[in-house]
Amino acid sequence: MSLHGPYDPDNIFARILRGDMPNVTVWEDDDVLAFMDVFPQSEGHVLVISKTAHARTLLDIAPEALARVTAAVQRIARAVDKALAPDGISVMQFNGAAGGQTVFHLHFHVIPRWKDRPMKGHGHAPMADTQALRALADRIAAALD
Amino acid sequence: MSLHGPYDPDNIFARILRGDMPNVTVWEDDDVLAFMDVFPQSEGHVLVISKTAHARTLLDIAPEALARVTAAVQRIARAVDKALAPDGISVMQFNGAAGGQTVFHLHFHVIPRWKDRPMKGHGHAPMADTQALRALADRIAAALD
Repeated sequence: MSLHGPYDPDNIFARILRGDMPNVTVWEDDDVLAFMDVFPQSEGHVLVISKTAHARTLLDIAPEALARVTAAVQRIARAVDKALAPDGISVMQFNGAAGGQTVFHLHFHVIPRWKDRPMKGHGHAPMADTQALRALADRIAAALD
Repeated sequence: MSLHGPYDPDNIFARILRGDMPNVTVWEDDDVLAFMDVFPQSEGHVLVISKTAHARTLLDIAPEALARVTAAVQRIARAVDKALAPDGISVMQFNGAAGGQTVFHLHFHVIPRWKDRPMKGHGHAPMADTQALRALADRIAAALD
């Protein structure tokens, strides 16, 4: 899938937003959904997406919607920091298959990092246990400002 | 360097903003500077920083300043797409040494990606020729909306 093309309304995140697929929600409002990555590259890996912008990539979203998403990315990063006290946090946003994108609804990865634990490769992490994700999501949600 | 701590006013990007270090500018306004990474992970690797926010990481910046930076990240990504026609674009933002951060002034990487060219590792790319960077910066700047 290239950088350009139509938005596929049946991508996985669109299905989550329609309620056709489950997700482990950390936080949401009318504009933004933050939920646990089911293939976490590290413990506490959260995804942040727009609920209103049907944007395939960063190239396609209106600036106002982008600002709401990136404000939520910051809010989630702060909560991850408080809840999990990682040594670092990597934020990644991939566009096009060659850019690392695997789901074609614009999303930001918020990935806690620890000095002594290597981050798993994107697309190479095992599927996480839902109960464990729910417990992490609850810890992060409790730390939201 | 951890996720938390004071802003070091002598970090490399602070010196660039003071005019004490050279940079190859793509575009700037009163709030934001976009310039070429001198250790490019791929051809056309641009960095975007706030000129006004003395923020060490994503955790430290005011939401309004963050929105200006991320709007500029999008504008630069669109120009990189038009100028260089990459197969993908990876946006990365690292916080704390364990998160991949090497300069402690908040910055976003905009990294063009090509299917047939592996991205060089962060901190493992050779220093680029300034004339070559200037030529790339001019091509990207000419494609700005």
